[in-house]
Amino acid sequence: MVVRGAGAIGAAAAYGLAQGARAFRGRNVAKFLQHVETVCDTLKAARPTAVDPINALNCVRQAMRAGQSVEEQQALALAAAEEFANEDVRHCEDIGRHGANLICDGMNVLTHCNAGWLAFVDIGSATAPLYAAQAQGRRFHVYCDETRPRSQGATLTAWELAQQKVSHQIIADSAAGHLMQRGKIDLVIVGSDRTLGRTGEVANKIGTYTKAVLARRHGIPFYVAIPLSTIDWNMKSGLDIPIEERHQSEVLGAWGVVGRTPGKGPTPYPTSRVRHSVKRVYVRVANPTSEALNPGFDVTPAELIKGIITPVGILEPHELWAQRRELGCALGNKDLRAR
Amino acid sequence: MVVRGAGAIGAAAAYGLAQGARAFRGRNVAKFLQHVETVCDTLKAARPTAVDPINALNCVRQAMRAGQSVEEQQALALAAAEEFANEDVRHCEDIGRHGANLICDGMNVLTHCNAGWLAFVDIGSATAPLYAAQAQGRRFHVYCDETRPRSQGATLTAWELAQQKVSHQIIADSAAGHLMQRGKIDLVIVGSDRTLGRTGEVANKIGTYTKAVLARRHGIPFYVAIPLSTIDWNMKSGLDIPIEERHQSEVLGAWGVVGRTPGKGPTPYPTSRVRHSVKRVYVRVANPTSEALNPGFDVTPAELIKGIITPVGILEPHELWAQRRELGCALGNKDLRAR
Repeated sequence: MVVRGAGAIGAAAAYGLAQGARAFRGRNVAKFLQHVETVCDTLKAARPTAVDPINALNCVRQAMRAGQSVEEQQALALAAAEEFANEDVRHCEDIGRHGANLICDGMNVLTHCNAGWLAFVDIGSATAPLYAAQAQGRRFHVYCDETRPRSQGATLTAWELAQQKVSHQIIADSAAGHLMQRGKIDLVIVGSDRTLGRTGEVANKIGTYTKAVLARRHGIPFYVAIPLSTIDWNMKSGLDIPIEERHQSEVLGAWGVVGRTPGKGPTPYPTSRVRHSVKRVYVRVANPTSEALNPGFDVTPAELIKGIITPVGILEPHELWAQRRELGCALGNKDLRAR
Repeated sequence: MVVRGAGAIGAAAAYGLAQGARAFRGRNVAKFLQHVETVCDTLKAARPTAVDPINALNCVRQAMRAGQSVEEQQALALAAAEEFANEDVRHCEDIGRHGANLICDGMNVLTHCNAGWLAFVDIGSATAPLYAAQAQGRRFHVYCDETRPRSQGATLTAWELAQQKVSHQIIADSAAGHLMQRGKIDLVIVGSDRTLGRTGEVANKIGTYTKAVLARRHGIPFYVAIPLSTIDWNMKSGLDIPIEERHQSEVLGAWGVVGRTPGKGPTPYPTSRVRHSVKRVYVRVANPTSEALNPGFDVTPAELIKGIITPVGILEPHELWAQRRELGCALGNKDLRAR
């Protein structure tokens, strides 16, 4: 979690492999490939739910095959990692271009967790349509789910939107249903950590599935924005996606900056002048003798998803598989041609 | 929020009126009644969403009418408040007796917020069936929704369940959908701050509606446990229930006890030995330049509710109105006979 966000961990895995490959000293190709295997296994194990790192590693390894010597392969790995990162930026720009059409003047948009520029190499997936629509002069309001337990919505997405001067409010994760019931949400856009190319199922931050169920009940369109590196073309069922079980301390407490007591004095909480010397602390919120369960992700079935905003256009979930050749090739995943 | 929980604020309102009435000095009955009016208005304004305080005040005022002098009315008010509080205890015991039948050995039960003994005069509403089932020797597991922003589930319900030695785990509010999808929740029981006798709609802590929508999708029975003082016999639509808008600082931060950094050292968060000298602090979690929206409650429609666990038995939501005479009389609300 030092690096987080689908695109960012994909790029980090690509560069991680390139860097890991360069750390090998010697000319023995067999030993080098064994070393590369170990590097890949280490990088894969870091975040089990997301597929971007796996796709990134496959991309880099495929590129390395064109080289003979250790030195050649090391150089190819770095070039492939750079290409992977650049592609993430282009993909996010394309997502923005296609997704911006969904956002009309005066709309209220809900997003969950952070799939913004802090989660990608640039621009972001779920936020790309927002920034593109803003650039086109449209005005809208964004509700950021706080996204407990790690508060990526309250911290990262809210900060991004504030920087971009997009009108927004943070809400508790439990509040979206009420707002939908009162007609205050028109559109939901989220990111994804792994989207199954065969079924259109979407794994994303815990709580995403709940928002999709609520959106369906209220007839609100629910979209998922993904670069192509987020597609898993192999897995056959969402039930097979490994759901990362995170440490219970995340649920039992919260990280924050100590402030004054709300309601006492003129600033009820730390103001905007946050100095870099301000220290973040962990506070235990929960009853000290209780334990917590902390699944980090959940899986949203295709039937709840109105559309998947990809770099090549907005597709219905079942269209991913039909268009696997085009989508796979765009990722340089040439073995999809044969399937 | 110094006193919170449907039953507890009802009893506090009843005693508050009795105490307010006793604070009047003099024998002028007209002036006394004017004073009583002011006391009632003050108490009613404290928590707009809940109806228990209103029902409690009506009960006490009705009892006072039997008196002539100021002194007589003051004495009747105190007796009525005591009766109201005692009735809450009896109601919760009866809720437990009826609701315990829903809980089978090995079940996983989800609850939201705190409707336990910390929210009532004793035993609680949503937790009463749990405690009664436990007393009958049944074993089950409870998932406590953390219940942001004020964490009543993580703090109060979890503490109660730990005291009662009921197996439980705290989960993020966003996690229940995932657990339901994986077949890990068999039953949902929540409390209520106002239940409409005419429609069966239930106002309760923000997030309750979301759990009801999820439960419906997964075919999981969703029950609401209420003492009779939680029923509003007048209001005609859930849309008319005033939803308390609370201070945004609740969403922007969290209250907790400062602990060690999770993962460093043997105790990742403050241990069970919490001393009374330990100081709770407020930490700002969210981006400091962002604002929040903080609706405190939401409304669950009758169609999502399998049953309402009342002191007189488990009823379907629409049966409340059909049985209004019996239910109303049990509350001493005799004017319901005429409707």
